[in-house]
Amino acid sequence: MPQPAHPAAINGLTLAQAEVIAAAALAKGHEMKFLPLTVVVLDAGGQVKVIKREDGCSILRPEVAMGKAFGAMAMGFGTRELARRAQAVPGFTNALSDLTGGRAVPVQGGVLIRDANNVLLGAVGISGDTSPNDEICCTAGIEAAGLQADNGDPA
Amino acid sequence: MPQPAHPAAINGLTLAQAEVIAAAALAKGHEMKFLPLTVVVLDAGGQVKVIKREDGCSILRPEVAMGKAFGAMAMGFGTRELARRAQAVPGFTNALSDLTGGRAVPVQGGVLIRDANNVLLGAVGISGDTSPNDEICCTAGIEAAGLQADNGDPA
Amino acid sequence: MPQPAHPAAINGLTLAQAEVIAAAALAKGHEMKFLPLTVVVLDAGGQVKVIKREDGCSILRPEVAMGKAFGAMAMGFGTRELARRAQAVPGFTNALSDLTGGRAVPVQGGVLIRDANNVLLGAVGISGDTSPNDEICCTAGIEAAGLQADNGDPA
Amino acid sequence: MPQPAHPAAINGLTLAQAEVIAAAALAKGHEMKFLPLTVVVLDAGGQVKVIKREDGCSILRPEVAMGKAFGAMAMGFGTRELARRAQAVPGFTNALSDLTGGRAVPVQGGVLIRDANNVLLGAVGISGDTSPNDEICCTAGIEAAGLQADNGDPA
Repeated sequence: MPQPAHPAAINGLTLAQAEVIAAAALAKGHEMKFLPLTVVVLDAGGQVKVIKREDGCSILRPEVAMGKAFGAMAMGFGTRELARRAQAVPGFTNALSDLTGGRAVPVQGGVLIRDANNVLLGAVGISGDTSPNDEICCTAGIEAAGLQADNGDPA
Repeated sequence: MPQPAHPAAINGLTLAQAEVIAAAALAKGHEMKFLPLTVVVLDAGGQVKVIKREDGCSILRPEVAMGKAFGAMAMGFGTRELARRAQAVPGFTNALSDLTGGRAVPVQGGVLIRDANNVLLGAVGISGDTSPNDEICCTAGIEAAGLQADNGDPA
Repeated sequence: MPQPAHPAAINGLTLAQAEVIAAAALAKGHEMKFLPLTVVVLDAGGQVKVIKREDGCSILRPEVAMGKAFGAMAMGFGTRELARRAQAVPGFTNALSDLTGGRAVPVQGGVLIRDANNVLLGAVGISGDTSPNDEICCTAGIEAAGLQADNGDPA
Repeated sequence: MPQPAHPAAINGLTLAQAEVIAAAALAKGHEMKFLPLTVVVLDAGGQVKVIKREDGCSILRPEVAMGKAFGAMAMGFGTRELARRAQAVPGFTNALSDLTGGRAVPVQGGVLIRDANNVLLGAVGISGDTSPNDEICCTAGIEAAGLQADNGDPA
């Protein structure tokens, strides 16, 4: 990328990688005939690299997908684990929600992105179909980029 | 409508259609002798087309009716389904409430408006009587405009 | 209006009056070939009676129109006076904006509604064309209902 | 796009069009050797279709770019006009900022997207280089999609 004046820190994930992840995630949704999706890809700083909202995807899906990805980044594990805590310790996820001004959504479909050495590069969040289906697309996107998906289950 | 300078996109629902829906919804409430109602009609972008608050309707009813209509638009299904999720997955609806600054109300009485081809045109939310009665008026309004009411139950 | 069970307080303005005001205000805009408008009518409690947003009116116009009507109700004078204060005493209108969470918009186009005895019944706010044109429509609406428009200038 | 179950309204702009706009806008920045950019493309309902943040682009750029695009959609004109009003009527733009919780940024670089019939389809906002340079990229993106750029100046 020709930015010679200010060669900036890459926080984990490049835009090029995020593009691959987002495109492959949406392609997986089409292949599976899922409902229209929104995909959000965050870098290692928890900041947006790419958001795409498909035609027909309802209006709050970007915020929900962001909330899954941000929730995963916020706590350092995929949102399967956040969803478990929402069941087991609702006081914690309610507090987390308040603490973040509603920006952490404790629902499956937020997946951490790691490289081959397990280094955290960012996260993907998807919303639009059921939560398990959303997660399938997160994982497909990450793997299409040759990276490791960490959904919050023990390895 | 004479807007020659900037003919703007109509996001799903015209004001004329929204007027029919609101008037018929309130007429249904009178016919059924329901309590005073507030009706909110949103377009396909989730923005207000019409709000009417009847005499004697308490002061937060516009926000509640808006919250039902917005909740339906936000997630892409009628609030019967949001109400079910509030029972089954309270962590999600709590998060949704925080995520939207309280703007999504997971209670029956928020109904999507679809055309004959199932295309989403907007939503109606009503508050003032019981939630099932509020929903009856949403449906009556939508049907009076020759459109399809989608309350969140499977078709 | 047949609400026998709970004959409620009418805070100044009936829905029937608000309907007349809103319809006449929009008709004035059409007659003058103004841009698409949003009209908000509030009762004496500062609560919504009617909102209508015309096709092609941009998405924040309901909030702006509401902000004019609410600003007028909040301080007890039409927004011509609020606009003058924004010029002369910006610290005041900035503080008012913060105090109300942004709900008071100090711009012409928010007009108080008074009866023949000068009793305050509510307010109209309009947004969509220039502020002076917005105000013309507020006044036309109020006068069509046989009521007095108070735009914030000395009588 | 295969969405058989719930064919939803397209609010002005398709994802395919938004992709073309975003890619061409960033390509223009590279060609001109501008600093790293973030581009936001909104549909006619003011909701996100695409966001892309280039490597090295600072962390609040998505919010700033969104604020330009949203400000344009909110008021119905490009942010050149919002920037003029910020100079001429600071009370209004201060109020607009508060009214939207800071979501409307009155700075050049928010451009409306119109079709050949002048119908509003959405908006592009860019942040990263100077405001005039940001705007150059908005315009390049919109024209690459065969659409009309409306920057807020009289036609």
